[in-house]
Amino acid sequence: MTYCVGLLLDAGLVMLSDTRTNAGLDHISIYRKMFVFENPGDRVIAIMTAGSLSITQTVIAKLQHEIDNPDATPASSIMLAETMLDVAEIIGQTLSDVSVSIGEKMARMESRQPHASMIVGGQRRGGEARLFLVYSEGNFIEATEDTPYFQIGEHKYGKPILDRVVHLNTSIEEGRKVVLLSMDSTMRSNLSVGMPLDLLTVRRDAYRVASRERIEPGDPTFSAMSDAWSRALRDAFHDMPG
Amino acid sequence: MTYCVGLLLDAGLVMLSDTRTNAGLDHISIYRKMFVFENPGDRVIAIMTAGSLSITQTVIAKLQHEIDNPDATPASSIMLAETMLDVAEIIGQTLSDVSVSIGEKMARMESRQPHASMIVGGQRRGGEARLFLVYSEGNFIEATEDTPYFQIGEHKYGKPILDRVVHLNTSIEEGRKVVLLSMDSTMRSNLSVGMPLDLLTVRRDAYRVASRERIEPGDPTFSAMSDAWSRALRDAFHDMPG
Repeated sequence: MTYCVGLLLDAGLVMLSDTRTNAGLDHISIYRKMFVFENPGDRVIAIMTAGSLSITQTVIAKLQHEIDNPDATPASSIMLAETMLDVAEIIGQTLSDVSVSIGEKMARMESRQPHASMIVGGQRRGGEARLFLVYSEGNFIEATEDTPYFQIGEHKYGKPILDRVVHLNTSIEEGRKVVLLSMDSTMRSNLSVGMPLDLLTVRRDAYRVASRERIEPGDPTFSAMSDAWSRALRDAFHDMPG
Repeated sequence: MTYCVGLLLDAGLVMLSDTRTNAGLDHISIYRKMFVFENPGDRVIAIMTAGSLSITQTVIAKLQHEIDNPDATPASSIMLAETMLDVAEIIGQTLSDVSVSIGEKMARMESRQPHASMIVGGQRRGGEARLFLVYSEGNFIEATEDTPYFQIGEHKYGKPILDRVVHLNTSIEEGRKVVLLSMDSTMRSNLSVGMPLDLLTVRRDAYRVASRERIEPGDPTFSAMSDAWSRALRDAFHDMPG
């Protein structure tokens, strides 16, 4: 399983993913699910992935292949695309092509159809910071003022805190805190979502990564935050009129 | 969809269900999902249901039919059964029989197999207060010291608060508060879970209902609690070290 969450704030973008993948409970591995493409000062694009690893790895490889292709065009490479919308379209098309191709192989073996989805965020010089949710079929939706966040994977446990706290005017620092608490609630309830975590922030109109961290199991700051939140919740509960 | 939650506490039982059922988003109805069987001073049994209404209504009707049957035996009527374990077995067997019978009809039409599950709580004189989760197949598990609550239906949104607050020594009053907040988080995130709510409490070794309420939409106490909790969460979040 997977949990990834991305925020689109006035201040910029905050993106967080876990790294646990599993095929059954006894085949657990760590795979990066966040991929960052950056040309500092020109553009920064972050992709987070959920679903079939065979699909998502192939999509990322194909996107990288087109970036490295000396004949790449704005229609083929996300690093040359003229807008974030074009970036989302290239990613959606690639995801759709790979899903269909792998799906055909699976159908021949009567295996279950694999699926994957992605959150894509970024900004390029001259354009707005944007956040997209790309479905397996290649179509996508965009975050708006009313819905300034997207989640993929095991999203339900971590949603109540996002719903109550995240607004467009949430700061990057508060956004960082809320996605970590949302992840914490998810990891407590679903064993197949796990550390380490990848956390990325991008400030609006900077066109570069502001911070990028990998948070390892036992990280003292994260553990302290998790404990403080549990205490705060319990205190709030006990102080509340019933 | 449905959300029901039951707590087994040292102090007794707390059970809460919503009442919304839907077949698609434009066919929404209110159906009771909590059924209480009581012989005050001897026994009290509460059943909450999730899943296919065609199954759960038939199960409740069959249980009632056996209760009313002048030839009922401890093996057939939950009001005569000698232990709560026997009660769970009668309910499980009935649920399994009905599921198979309706499933066969559906299979003939190549329709999707319907499922239902139930939470059963209660106590009879001479026995312990017990709480069971009964699966569609008729088998069941029992709440323990380590896992003093069960949920059925749309359980994920409302789980983090339960995990952090519910212990065996939680009082009935606090239990009432936590199941309502768990329901509140669920209703905020899933439109197909909705008011009114049915709330039941049973004090240990009383063998009767302690309180039974239907909480209607716009109930001022529930709304105040919901608002206070959102405020408390936001305050706790802002006061927390990041």
